[in-house]
Amino acid sequence: MNYTSIHDIDNISAWIEEAKTLKANPLKHIQLGKNKVLGLLFFNSSLRTRLSTQKAALNLGMNPIVMNVSGDAWGIEFGDGTVMNGTTAEHIKEAAAVVSQYCDIIAVRAFPSLIDKEKDESEHVLKSFAKYASVPIVNMESATGHPLQGLTDAITISEHAKVAKPKVVLSWAPHIKALPHAVGNSFVQAMQKMDVEFVIANPKGYNLNPEITGDTPIYHNQEEAFKDADFVYTKNWSSYEDYGKVVNTDPNWMITKEKLGNAKFMHCLPVRRNVVVEDAVLDTDSSLVIEQANNRTYAAQLVLKKILENA
Amino acid sequence: MNYTSIHDIDNISAWIEEAKTLKANPLKHIQLGKNKVLGLLFFNSSLRTRLSTQKAALNLGMNPIVMNVSGDAWGIEFGDGTVMNGTTAEHIKEAAAVVSQYCDIIAVRAFPSLIDKEKDESEHVLKSFAKYASVPIVNMESATGHPLQGLTDAITISEHAKVAKPKVVLSWAPHIKALPHAVGNSFVQAMQKMDVEFVIANPKGYNLNPEITGDTPIYHNQEEAFKDADFVYTKNWSSYEDYGKVVNTDPNWMITKEKLGNAKFMHCLPVRRNVVVEDAVLDTDSSLVIEQANNRTYAAQLVLKKILENA
Amino acid sequence: MNYTSIHDIDNISAWIEEAKTLKANPLKHIQLGKNKVLGLLFFNSSLRTRLSTQKAALNLGMNPIVMNVSGDAWGIEFGDGTVMNGTTAEHIKEAAAVVSQYCDIIAVRAFPSLIDKEKDESEHVLKSFAKYASVPIVNMESATGHPLQGLTDAITISEHAKVAKPKVVLSWAPHIKALPHAVGNSFVQAMQKMDVEFVIANPKGYNLNPEITGDTPIYHNQEEAFKDADFVYTKNWSSYEDYGKVVNTDPNWMITKEKLGNAKFMHCLPVRRNVVVEDAVLDTDSSLVIEQANNRTYAAQLVLKKILENA
Repeated sequence: MNYTSIHDIDNISAWIEEAKTLKANPLKHIQLGKNKVLGLLFFNSSLRTRLSTQKAALNLGMNPIVMNVSGDAWGIEFGDGTVMNGTTAEHIKEAAAVVSQYCDIIAVRAFPSLIDKEKDESEHVLKSFAKYASVPIVNMESATGHPLQGLTDAITISEHAKVAKPKVVLSWAPHIKALPHAVGNSFVQAMQKMDVEFVIANPKGYNLNPEITGDTPIYHNQEEAFKDADFVYTKNWSSYEDYGKVVNTDPNWMITKEKLGNAKFMHCLPVRRNVVVEDAVLDTDSSLVIEQANNRTYAAQLVLKKILENA
Repeated sequence: MNYTSIHDIDNISAWIEEAKTLKANPLKHIQLGKNKVLGLLFFNSSLRTRLSTQKAALNLGMNPIVMNVSGDAWGIEFGDGTVMNGTTAEHIKEAAAVVSQYCDIIAVRAFPSLIDKEKDESEHVLKSFAKYASVPIVNMESATGHPLQGLTDAITISEHAKVAKPKVVLSWAPHIKALPHAVGNSFVQAMQKMDVEFVIANPKGYNLNPEITGDTPIYHNQEEAFKDADFVYTKNWSSYEDYGKVVNTDPNWMITKEKLGNAKFMHCLPVRRNVVVEDAVLDTDSSLVIEQANNRTYAAQLVLKKILENA
Repeated sequence: MNYTSIHDIDNISAWIEEAKTLKANPLKHIQLGKNKVLGLLFFNSSLRTRLSTQKAALNLGMNPIVMNVSGDAWGIEFGDGTVMNGTTAEHIKEAAAVVSQYCDIIAVRAFPSLIDKEKDESEHVLKSFAKYASVPIVNMESATGHPLQGLTDAITISEHAKVAKPKVVLSWAPHIKALPHAVGNSFVQAMQKMDVEFVIANPKGYNLNPEITGDTPIYHNQEEAFKDADFVYTKNWSSYEDYGKVVNTDPNWMITKEKLGNAKFMHCLPVRRNVVVEDAVLDTDSSLVIEQANNRTYAAQLVLKKILENA
């Protein structure tokens, strides 16, 4: 069993309930992962994912081993049939098979280029690990998805919902840098599986991949989208159409206390204050961001537990 | 309970005795930290602190998780109300609160700029962690203090004292680079709490912060200060008055076997040989530097034990 | 007991048998290393060694602590009597003695310069650790040897040999970069201790150090050397005579399926595909490279076990 996308969740309600049970008693399964190794391979920076996934492994009695691939090891080649006389020193075929000799589960973080859409959408890093590893693979954020975050967000919404079918808005917000679509994509996929009223708000030119958003309503008017919202999940992403470009930094899309009203504010973090969202939101009870970070542990722990039980 | 400064030691004699007890039986409390996580966050390089603090955590049964903040994660913003459209991607308010979700204790190393005296003295990194974290904070060397080192040095002096009230000299020594005042400051504060005759020797222009040195006698004549010394603790620091500047590299202040006489030589390490101190000192029994390094484990272990017991 | 070279193996047959026993039951000795720390110090990149040595330590119940010396700590000085007013901040005399305070065994990786032959052959990094540390030292690849790899290769050949005295060829292969001789040297030394027919194939100008190759036959004709081979161990190295230079990149020396015949292909990895060896070799059962990587764990575990038992 791999966990590479929200689609790997067969029954999101059941997963959420099990995650809550883990959260209530995190050390209950500390024998499950005894003498097992979780390898965490980072091609990119990480704070929450790095720490929460290690914490999740420790809660299950596993030994986490962390490696920053670029700095600690060798440049990895992903091409098929390549004559490797350039900068890459090791092929993914060997790298994935070798790491599988030492780890019982391999977790991988590999961001997109945001330059080559086709290559990013092929998920060549994650899929190559899944293809050539002989042990289960966990996605710690890939080019197009961040399913540990999406699961976390589903858990958090379930915990804080005050009505049977809450209204959830995913809102784009401005940012100075070109960011990936992964968090947005996985959040959309998670919400589509949940019993919520779900809409997206983003400026023109910022629609996410239509194959992912599907029938989900998209508003280009933020105020209209936010009407009667219970949860406003905020995230910047670069343009998908004009791939990887920053085509709008309109500060009017920043989340304010006033816009938010009684809705709860959510964000995967890190968040740029007073660019994406104003201090007045983050520094009050309207914000769920710290609780989201906390739930990262239990989302990861649930995924690792399911993999260990399937082994 | 935080451990951010020597002032957090309520009774240094009692702490020293307890540290000696731990040293005699380091694994006695291995159940105390079971299933607890110590997060070690490094904004700067470290060898002794990195290894000894992990060792201390392991001796208490804790799981240490190490993160090099700059390389592994995101640039952290410390300003209040900042519009974060620059190079920092995550605010300390979130970073500290988030790391608190995964760690039971957070240890932080953050050196000073040695450029902006006021900012350094505000201890904005350490104090921000203490303010925004929801778990205890341990100082692994901040802008103005290195209290794990200061406690270590107090333990080492207590172990090697041959008279009831030994004479201890803190001597400045030359160095080619501008170094922080942290080790000097914490050593001064530790000695002021102990029953020792304590004096400082440094060239003119190199007095430490007078609010810290207080009534401690300061000699500008090294020979005079060293008279009848039992311990000579040596350290370079940059000018405090002419903040962060190297205003003197007089090789006559290097510690030699001849100057030292029967006194024991101490240094926190790393030490530049034949610049700060000559080989003839380090390569003989006059030197306590390796035993100091050993005691780093027990100083850290004592601090972690006290925090765990207070939790 | 140190493990710095293949010469530290007293009886290679007995070691191989014991390694196979460990492999059959890797967790049998999990109490042996309990509460002991293995320090892994990397001056250079590593994937297999980094992960397999940690895995080996965990299998023995040890706590591994990893440090990238250059990035995490201070520049280390190896010269005797040096006035340290340059870029190095800590002398190996202190560094090795200090790390010995926190670790029960120290494993070190330090590649050669490939510029200064005499300095590389002096093994100043590894030997300085062995001299100044107060705990056992393990070589995780030094300037002139990689004995954990050599032991691994001996185990792998023993496992896959189909005749009493197999023919083993060490073949040089082309590469675009100047590589060390360490893997080649340790493989030669391991084979010289085993009951195999052992020959070396390399182009003129690429003979390894004659003090190491000794009586082992060296062919400059690859085809002739490969005749009736059971195992072809492939590795690039730079010239030893014209020290550290790439004097030949003749693609005719690349290993092909055709050349290999019925022999098994071996390589320490990482390997550049279609430069050192063609895909058609690696992607079939002719290749033992992944099993070699697996055996790295048991070679390291055997060495650590012997050291722990000797302590």
